[in-house]
Amino acid sequence: VNVYLLSLDIRKADAVFLNVCAMLVFAAQIGFAMLEVGSVRVKNTKGILLKNVMDLCASAVSFFLIGYGLALGKSVGGGVFGGRVGDGFAMRTDNLSGSEATGDVVVSYTQAFFTMCFSATSATIVSGAVAERCSFRAYFVAATLVSGLIFPVVVHWSWGDDGWLAPVRSQHKLLSSVGVLDYAGSGFVHVVGGCAAFWLTYLIGPRQGRFTKGKRAPNPMPQQSPVFQVIGGLIMWYGWYGFTCGSIKTLAGPRIASLARVGLIHTLSGAVGGCTVMAIDLYLEPNVFMPFRMIYGSLSALVAASASAAHIHISISLCIAFVAGFIYVITSHLMTHVWRLDDVVDAVPIHFFNGIWGVIAAALFSDKRFLQQTYGEAYAGCGLVYGCAKGPAVLGNAMLYIVSIIIWVTVTFVPVMWLIKKYGWLRISSEQERIGTDAALHGGESYPEFQSAIFNFKDKIT
Amino acid sequence: VNVYLLSLDIRKADAVFLNVCAMLVFAAQIGFAMLEVGSVRVKNTKGILLKNVMDLCASAVSFFLIGYGLALGKSVGGGVFGGRVGDGFAMRTDNLSGSEATGDVVVSYTQAFFTMCFSATSATIVSGAVAERCSFRAYFVAATLVSGLIFPVVVHWSWGDDGWLAPVRSQHKLLSSVGVLDYAGSGFVHVVGGCAAFWLTYLIGPRQGRFTKGKRAPNPMPQQSPVFQVIGGLIMWYGWYGFTCGSIKTLAGPRIASLARVGLIHTLSGAVGGCTVMAIDLYLEPNVFMPFRMIYGSLSALVAASASAAHIHISISLCIAFVAGFIYVITSHLMTHVWRLDDVVDAVPIHFFNGIWGVIAAALFSDKRFLQQTYGEAYAGCGLVYGCAKGPAVLGNAMLYIVSIIIWVTVTFVPVMWLIKKYGWLRISSEQERIGTDAALHGGESYPEFQSAIFNFKDKIT
Amino acid sequence: VNVYLLSLDIRKADAVFLNVCAMLVFAAQIGFAMLEVGSVRVKNTKGILLKNVMDLCASAVSFFLIGYGLALGKSVGGGVFGGRVGDGFAMRTDNLSGSEATGDVVVSYTQAFFTMCFSATSATIVSGAVAERCSFRAYFVAATLVSGLIFPVVVHWSWGDDGWLAPVRSQHKLLSSVGVLDYAGSGFVHVVGGCAAFWLTYLIGPRQGRFTKGKRAPNPMPQQSPVFQVIGGLIMWYGWYGFTCGSIKTLAGPRIASLARVGLIHTLSGAVGGCTVMAIDLYLEPNVFMPFRMIYGSLSALVAASASAAHIHISISLCIAFVAGFIYVITSHLMTHVWRLDDVVDAVPIHFFNGIWGVIAAALFSDKRFLQQTYGEAYAGCGLVYGCAKGPAVLGNAMLYIVSIIIWVTVTFVPVMWLIKKYGWLRISSEQERIGTDAALHGGESYPEFQSAIFNFKDKIT
Repeated sequence: VNVYLLSLDIRKADAVFLNVCAMLVFAAQIGFAMLEVGSVRVKNTKGILLKNVMDLCASAVSFFLIGYGLALGKSVGGGVFGGRVGDGFAMRTDNLSGSEATGDVVVSYTQAFFTMCFSATSATIVSGAVAERCSFRAYFVAATLVSGLIFPVVVHWSWGDDGWLAPVRSQHKLLSSVGVLDYAGSGFVHVVGGCAAFWLTYLIGPRQGRFTKGKRAPNPMPQQSPVFQVIGGLIMWYGWYGFTCGSIKTLAGPRIASLARVGLIHTLSGAVGGCTVMAIDLYLEPNVFMPFRMIYGSLSALVAASASAAHIHISISLCIAFVAGFIYVITSHLMTHVWRLDDVVDAVPIHFFNGIWGVIAAALFSDKRFLQQTYGEAYAGCGLVYGCAKGPAVLGNAMLYIVSIIIWVTVTFVPVMWLIKKYGWLRISSEQERIGTDAALHGGESYPEFQSAIFNFKDKIT
Repeated sequence: VNVYLLSLDIRKADAVFLNVCAMLVFAAQIGFAMLEVGSVRVKNTKGILLKNVMDLCASAVSFFLIGYGLALGKSVGGGVFGGRVGDGFAMRTDNLSGSEATGDVVVSYTQAFFTMCFSATSATIVSGAVAERCSFRAYFVAATLVSGLIFPVVVHWSWGDDGWLAPVRSQHKLLSSVGVLDYAGSGFVHVVGGCAAFWLTYLIGPRQGRFTKGKRAPNPMPQQSPVFQVIGGLIMWYGWYGFTCGSIKTLAGPRIASLARVGLIHTLSGAVGGCTVMAIDLYLEPNVFMPFRMIYGSLSALVAASASAAHIHISISLCIAFVAGFIYVITSHLMTHVWRLDDVVDAVPIHFFNGIWGVIAAALFSDKRFLQQTYGEAYAGCGLVYGCAKGPAVLGNAMLYIVSIIIWVTVTFVPVMWLIKKYGWLRISSEQERIGTDAALHGGESYPEFQSAIFNFKDKIT
Repeated sequence: VNVYLLSLDIRKADAVFLNVCAMLVFAAQIGFAMLEVGSVRVKNTKGILLKNVMDLCASAVSFFLIGYGLALGKSVGGGVFGGRVGDGFAMRTDNLSGSEATGDVVVSYTQAFFTMCFSATSATIVSGAVAERCSFRAYFVAATLVSGLIFPVVVHWSWGDDGWLAPVRSQHKLLSSVGVLDYAGSGFVHVVGGCAAFWLTYLIGPRQGRFTKGKRAPNPMPQQSPVFQVIGGLIMWYGWYGFTCGSIKTLAGPRIASLARVGLIHTLSGAVGGCTVMAIDLYLEPNVFMPFRMIYGSLSALVAASASAAHIHISISLCIAFVAGFIYVITSHLMTHVWRLDDVVDAVPIHFFNGIWGVIAAALFSDKRFLQQTYGEAYAGCGLVYGCAKGPAVLGNAMLYIVSIIIWVTVTFVPVMWLIKKYGWLRISSEQERIGTDAALHGGESYPEFQSAIFNFKDKIT
């Protein structure tokens, strides 16, 4: 009797714990909105705010209607195309009787809430990259598509009970029975969102005046407020605890030790990532050191830590964060100076490239004992550097996972957005872009008392 | 022995859980302050900030001294006028001995903390409605009155163990033994605060220049910052999880299943409410779609969801949120264009009208099995649409509850504020309003470095 | 078997609880950054933001590498100079085997995370005091020194198992076996940070133009935004729940009753502190009542409450908060008008003087039964006013503790900063200070779209 009561307790504790973590992930969304609005010009303030609120709302609805079943329903076709949509639709578990309601239903409710908040994050990554020029309806389609279809399928791969890449898959004959190590979504959140952001940035083209022909460096664009950037970034760092801590999913068994490590690793990763970019920037150009760069360094390290936070030594996690800082600085430079892509909030360097690094790092450095704490005693894989028999398979699966995500995002996302572009709906008109979304589409300037005087004045003296 | 230890554990878990939820409700207060300051003109920035900080502080003190006993003390006179003030004063439970301290005392402490945060919310609803013209001392009286007297009595009605409308009332012969369904305060927080806001808006009159005689539409007033509006609204949405999740109050028994559903319903309600207003606004005026409207749609849906979040099917909650969006749009139009009341943050449409809708919706659509999960197996009522014997009584009680709240708020709040108005203390002077509260009362402009140049310049060119 | 499982549960619950509290303390850091940026001039926006992000990052790393061992390692030399650094370095506990991992390792991880967030707070107190003129590298040294060395040693004194002043010290023959009462860091966080802030403010001198020779009152300096000040202050109040609630550290035993009281006391203290400063300010100068003053009153009361929140009667805590409001108003006046020290965010009045008051108040008013709930049945001390045998020793230890902290901070912090000053690295150049850190060091103005027009315009008309 007692053991039964106790196991019930664990479910309750799990439900409360996961609810709190889901709320934190929700808070990260606030940080996203704040960081993005801090990075755009004053004339596009309302536009970017609306996109952030809308993607939160639209993601929740589309994940609820379609995504939940795809992500956490019973596998269809070996788990490659996600779970049964019908398993999630309108949360059929509502209909279970009261006595059963204390068990699996609770788990499915809380996991739905938790994963729903993840899906909003995955979608919102795109909004920052194409800020100041993407049309509202095109972004509506992009957000709905990512959170309702693209993201959930990848979640199913690595988190679903029978996902083809899940490390906890019960009857795992495929892929050497080790699945992929993506503890808190370096792959299914950040590579997914980052890859979509990359493609949309490419398809939509740069903001007016961002690049000049024949000039390698981009023209600097004003950013509205370093306060919003930094406070927003810190709120993301705060909310991100929900991702990394919550992904432990249940407090049952020895994985509590993994959870405890995660809080530390999360904090230290952000710290080391920030310090690394600080050191690089101060070394390269001591007198133009910008706060948003340091915050982006922290966020890059959080992305990279997400795949491995529960099953890695703390000292190694510091090294992963250190490398993440470099990857951010380098790929950010590549984006603007080499590929000449106009990603307003460096979403691609932070989420895409460091998401890939996170998945690879997890495959290289995860410790077997910690993996068993997290995924169960039966788990046989380990990070490549520890030299166990399944090590190469773990790394191979990580590569396969990254490639699969890129292909999946590309074949589902690009054709739709390409069609939208073809019909001229992808981008706001040139005139709207010039006067700004606020005046053109959202009822007037965002700071009327300040702007009217300033910009009238500007017009007069120039 | 084990069962005893276990039940102790539940109390502990409850205390921790309710503390976390109370903190979240506190966070909602931060969102309120931010949303309100974003909605006023620059010249009244410090004024509205001070009112928000003051109502938080004054509410806590007045709820502690008077309100707690009224709300959660032993019933006096059948629970109509609340509980014994003396039960709460200075928290006499301090004096209980250590051994008892692990039981009821813990519960009373945490419920006091939790309900105290609710009371601040109830008071703060008023501040936004009468922003930019209400005097500091008049608002001080209003806030103290609402949180120390008006709100606690209504809490006692539906949450007190022997409140005359409490669904969990042990010896419930009145009202067909079903009480009223107001799970997380659509009525006792939002109808209460919204009704007080309505009356004060009516008594105080509009801001200077808001309405022109003979012109139906109000004159637009600048709003300081859409960023503060949206970020503040999102922080409210985040903190609101504390309301809806915390109102489950104890993790004991099967109600954990209700809790798990609440997180989902809360998130989806906000999402659907926001999307509904978005769709309406885009349909009516495609090119003046404002971010604060979408956020107000989300908040309206959260208000409407509060009465029923624990005992409703998820798919029905989506419909409630959808209707809430329409109610917001319609009543917001009625307020400004028909009744010509100047409610700066749409507090009345959001809190009053959607609070009423929430209480009615709970009486219409609550599922009996979920009600029993939440209020105990003995609960015999159900939503009207499910056709159980007590269904009509549930709806009747809801109507009685709404009418009672409106009468109670009116007879306690209006005479006091009317007297204050009669003595000329309700509103700042016309001159103070013209130059703004900041310069007149709070030591100077809020953004001296920006404003001095801009407004000097304005004076010169105009 | 059941009891074992249950005690395991408590550890798990502790880990989750402390993780959540650590996240809240992290959130307080966001509030700090926001409050500070709101208090500086526009031209130093990026500078102060960077210092806040940097001190968070640098603190985490230096606490991890050095501080953790000093703070919570096995005592060296009777606990006077902290614990063994090697106990913490790189978290050797990583190496423990899986089966042990559910016990002490979890505790050490979570305590490391929790205390790490405290250390960042202790360091960040300094940044606000010397804002707008301290060089980045000097502040880097200060932050690293405080969080890596100065703070951890004091933590060890009162929190370490064998700290020489710890109330829970097992074999406590020193100091009448009662240690010092510093529940949540009035001393080890706020007196430490406040004392360092005092010295650095003294060493670095005031901002250009802050004081005029022969004129007693300081010249007012513009503050950027009352919104950031107030919202930042409220976020601190919110995050501070992590300090006071989390310091209970374990949910085992009867201390849950203390925890439940803490939430109430925390909320009420902030409320009373704010109201007190409001009343004083309205009494002294009714028409220049500023919002930041009220928030500073709340924060002062939170500092003062931190030492005693778990073991004091609620009604007495209100009195402590009331006195804290007066202490803030008086010492703030002393700082600016008598000692002519330029402390940009009143860090010294809030943290240093009210930290001292908090430690003394705990020694005066702590109730014996609550102390036993918090520190175990064997604890023999009580607040002086209750007249138990060990009362005078409790007060004596509090005095010794305060004096020891001041000496410790002075001998470790002052020589280092004095050397830095001697080599001319302490302060930015006079020219950099004139044009502002943003333009001089951080890539240009913070609000380019607003500032370019305004400040060009200013130059033209003046």
